[in-house]
Amino acid sequence: MYRYLDKVDSPQDIKNMTVEELDLLAKDIRKFLVRSVSKTGGHLASNLGVVELTLALHKVFDSPKDKIVWDVGHQSYVHKIVTGRKDEFRSLRQFNGMSGFPKECECEHDIFDTGHSSTSISIAQGIACARDIKKENSSVIAVIGDGSITGGMALEALNHIGYTNTDMIIILNDNEMSIDKNVGGMSRYLSSIIRNSTVNKVKDEVEKILQVSPGGNIISKTANKMKDSIISKFTPHECSFFESIGIKYYGPIDGHNTKEVIEVLNKAKYKKGPVLLHVITKKGKGYRFAEEQPDKYHGVSKFDIKTGIKPSDAISISKQVGQKLSDMADKNKNIVAITAAMPSGTGLNIFEKNHPNRYYDVGIAEQHATTFAAGLAKNGMKPYFAVYSSFLQRAYDQIIHDVCITSKPVTFLIDRAGIVGNDGETHHGMFDLSYLNNIPNITVMAPKDSKELDLMMELSSNMNSPVAIRYPRGNSYYIETGAYDPIEIGSYEVISQGKDIVILAIGTMVKHALQAKDLLLEVGINPTIVNARFLKPIDTKLLNDLFNNHKRVVTIEDNVITGGFSTNINKFIIDNKYNVDITNIALPEEFIPHGSTDEIYESVGLSPSKIADKIKSL
Amino acid sequence: MYRYLDKVDSPQDIKNMTVEELDLLAKDIRKFLVRSVSKTGGHLASNLGVVELTLALHKVFDSPKDKIVWDVGHQSYVHKIVTGRKDEFRSLRQFNGMSGFPKECECEHDIFDTGHSSTSISIAQGIACARDIKKENSSVIAVIGDGSITGGMALEALNHIGYTNTDMIIILNDNEMSIDKNVGGMSRYLSSIIRNSTVNKVKDEVEKILQVSPGGNIISKTANKMKDSIISKFTPHECSFFESIGIKYYGPIDGHNTKEVIEVLNKAKYKKGPVLLHVITKKGKGYRFAEEQPDKYHGVSKFDIKTGIKPSDAISISKQVGQKLSDMADKNKNIVAITAAMPSGTGLNIFEKNHPNRYYDVGIAEQHATTFAAGLAKNGMKPYFAVYSSFLQRAYDQIIHDVCITSKPVTFLIDRAGIVGNDGETHHGMFDLSYLNNIPNITVMAPKDSKELDLMMELSSNMNSPVAIRYPRGNSYYIETGAYDPIEIGSYEVISQGKDIVILAIGTMVKHALQAKDLLLEVGINPTIVNARFLKPIDTKLLNDLFNNHKRVVTIEDNVITGGFSTNINKFIIDNKYNVDITNIALPEEFIPHGSTDEIYESVGLSPSKIADKIKSL
Repeated sequence: MYRYLDKVDSPQDIKNMTVEELDLLAKDIRKFLVRSVSKTGGHLASNLGVVELTLALHKVFDSPKDKIVWDVGHQSYVHKIVTGRKDEFRSLRQFNGMSGFPKECECEHDIFDTGHSSTSISIAQGIACARDIKKENSSVIAVIGDGSITGGMALEALNHIGYTNTDMIIILNDNEMSIDKNVGGMSRYLSSIIRNSTVNKVKDEVEKILQVSPGGNIISKTANKMKDSIISKFTPHECSFFESIGIKYYGPIDGHNTKEVIEVLNKAKYKKGPVLLHVITKKGKGYRFAEEQPDKYHGVSKFDIKTGIKPSDAISISKQVGQKLSDMADKNKNIVAITAAMPSGTGLNIFEKNHPNRYYDVGIAEQHATTFAAGLAKNGMKPYFAVYSSFLQRAYDQIIHDVCITSKPVTFLIDRAGIVGNDGETHHGMFDLSYLNNIPNITVMAPKDSKELDLMMELSSNMNSPVAIRYPRGNSYYIETGAYDPIEIGSYEVISQGKDIVILAIGTMVKHALQAKDLLLEVGINPTIVNARFLKPIDTKLLNDLFNNHKRVVTIEDNVITGGFSTNINKFIIDNKYNVDITNIALPEEFIPHGSTDEIYESVGLSPSKIADKIKSL
Repeated sequence: MYRYLDKVDSPQDIKNMTVEELDLLAKDIRKFLVRSVSKTGGHLASNLGVVELTLALHKVFDSPKDKIVWDVGHQSYVHKIVTGRKDEFRSLRQFNGMSGFPKECECEHDIFDTGHSSTSISIAQGIACARDIKKENSSVIAVIGDGSITGGMALEALNHIGYTNTDMIIILNDNEMSIDKNVGGMSRYLSSIIRNSTVNKVKDEVEKILQVSPGGNIISKTANKMKDSIISKFTPHECSFFESIGIKYYGPIDGHNTKEVIEVLNKAKYKKGPVLLHVITKKGKGYRFAEEQPDKYHGVSKFDIKTGIKPSDAISISKQVGQKLSDMADKNKNIVAITAAMPSGTGLNIFEKNHPNRYYDVGIAEQHATTFAAGLAKNGMKPYFAVYSSFLQRAYDQIIHDVCITSKPVTFLIDRAGIVGNDGETHHGMFDLSYLNNIPNITVMAPKDSKELDLMMELSSNMNSPVAIRYPRGNSYYIETGAYDPIEIGSYEVISQGKDIVILAIGTMVKHALQAKDLLLEVGINPTIVNARFLKPIDTKLLNDLFNNHKRVVTIEDNVITGGFSTNINKFIIDNKYNVDITNIALPEEFIPHGSTDEIYESVGLSPSKIADKIKSL
């Protein structure tokens, strides 16, 4: 079916391929990728961009002896194809199927588990330093995007490597785009290099020649030869960001010119000290829709190859948040919004459109985003930082040190809280209730549904202290049970009055609790259902009433069992010596793999039916 | 007593001083600083280094309308003197006295609370962006050291500022030293600028002239004039790290030349866009001992001015750890040690001396340190990252994402855990038991004393998974109670068998529990004392025995009450339905100010007598 791809079962199979064959293989791979991802969903644009680069890497280097570390990891599909896993693409990102990220447990060619951004240089340097201690001989390569390289830890690593002068190769995969369009001084700098580069000057000249020439084809060949010969004499920029801190810079290199990439890699392989190769690629390369709208084709669900992704009628919770915040900002001139390179993911692109002067995309920089927000708050603004739960882990110290010590009115809009589904281990937002719980001065809430989320955002706008609101990935949903009155700080809501058993559920788990109730009613159990919408402060008055009138308490949260919501309820019961039986239902203290959200809920006991079963068994 | 200092009660008082008067004031301030800090202890060398810089800032700018943000904050003493707080120096860093760091609650001139490194640029940019939204007019200045500027979040901020082109001034206070000697590519780069600078060339020439000239004094004046005129024409380096990402660079500037600094600040004040002034200062300037050994005079206890700091016979726990790790590395060739710019603070300077090839100082870069360690582990090393508890907060995501997801055998040696004393809010290591507790795959322990700490380090060296060992600031101490046998994972130790009440204490709190026991015996209470040396896993077998034989359980930990040790014990009791009364003694969920460790223990109820009182009251 695929003339060249069918021949490739391991990196060994491409070692002897010619450049022409590799280019044909690249064509096959692109076709395969589009077909496969259109059926399973997954990351598309970024993988289409690194086809030639990945093939060149596996041709020049000897994986797994030589170590290729993929930053962020979602662009490792071609690597997976080449390293014997093309048949697994049927199960890509499915429950019990192949991960969409490098996984050490999956294959020896996957050197390190990645998912969050900006880790690859640190990992590669660690591997390289260990190699040097052991006096072994191998190459170590970090492949990192232009969006990821400005993440703080990547810059810390560059600073360290410039000092240790460790032999390693950093491939800066520059597509002028992280997930959304890239921002930052570094991005401008890289663009200016490209603008001023020999490559482009030659390209321009070639184009000029072709335009005026009658026999275009022949001249084109000559021009290409000319171009190649210039490129092959690549020399480091004497004066550059990277050179100044001790890293040799080579580039820019055309990442879709297989011959050029192979040549450069072969040279870099024998260079001493740290080398950075600035490789220019195009996200979505080879699939028209993805080339035109690479951000839309970053992470996709199933789609029709011929028509591309259809616009969805559903409104995501993220979009709703962006719209609501924008509406609030219409009235409150102090509201400012911050994203760390996720304007469309968090819905803040809507805010940006309406309030461009009060909108900041800081790049992949959650630490800076948080302390920048604290600075804005210090000078009278009301900042909202919309961020994915698992990425906010990056700013833990800044939340404590810069926001909470002096109780700055910064609000964290924590998206992708709880189980996120197919991205797996690295992306589940399963620790936020725990890591925020022990921080003084912050109010933490989670709405039962999208309508209550609006109310919480309104509440936050009237508060003069740190706030976090966590909500799940997915589309807006409405429970339409209970009241939708303005919320008081620390107030819970009894949604359904039953007897004997009280279920305290937080956030999305309120919906599961209500569905579980229906199942329990069938067997004659009628639990009281409480929307415990604040992690803290807890509603002590209501809890006292409840624990005086129920014998059994069940807590439900889509957060790790340790240190989160259950911790607070358990402690309240202990401190007040209530004689009730307590059952905590939560995510187990282990990393949870990928799969559909429903499959995962079922597997960890958080689906409505599993919750009902658990309660029946008591 | 001080001819010039006595005249200064507010920044207004220096506005009309001439450069000569400011230099005399600087002399007074240095004398005052040395005298004052010799009596109270505190940060000395860094403050002696910024006297002229601080005076120039307050002469040129209008604080608090203009905002000066001090990175790390321990170099804000001169700022405190100038802003009306010189009389408070008597109570510097004492319980209920003046803080050693900027505190918004202390003075309107303290723009933001700082304590951890690398936050100032983000804060300043936030303040500046808010100013621009409000269309106000003021200057915002971040003062940041050369060690701090390579912290990830500072680099993230530079990248963002280079893009937003915000009007603000960054003063890079370059003393070629963070706390210990600075490392990193950036540090080398800054040194090379200084070496090649006009300033130095002029200085050299001046010195040459003086050496050959008979009438040195007159020529010296001429030479100084010449030098000044050259400096005043300072122009940005067209080609530099900072310029490349969009920040105007000016320097190097002699930070002890008041006239030069004032001139440059006056120019920077009216520049558009972000400006970085590279100011060279000398740590410890003006006090011989501190100039010679600035790292020793970074943070000091009381000392005799004439003789300087006397070497202490006491062995700190940090030193002990450095020695032990070095000894372990003699035998185990895979052990490597990592510090984030704290070789002497963590004791790793001892390791460095003995094993320079397996030692890494990564600079102020806790994120990189953690993931770098994971990379080393991936390639067969056994890495130990020694780090202060409150600074490890910076690496929370890296602990989860890079160390624990794939269970890499990285050991965190967590120094300064619990109450650290006079540094206060920003430095207490009071969250680690909570923030580590919810992370899967990591074993967390805390020794009762220094001998057990050795045993835990030995245990960790035999473990093939993530480990954290937390221990307090201070000198080595020995309880000499109970056994010192090799420790099994998750095993607690009954130190003293009593009845009715069982006290479960973790780490340092074992000592307090034993002292409390003596007080309790006086009133006829004989509690069982348990050394609960593992936060997790807990010793379920022993706990089952204990809870069957005691009616009352008391947990003690020097960690915030929420999410730490008590959380695990409470949950165990609830899950197993033990009918016991439980009391949790821990730090309150609030930020705890500075003071001596004993005073703080007393104030928060963790002193032995307060613990005894609490138990008596039950």
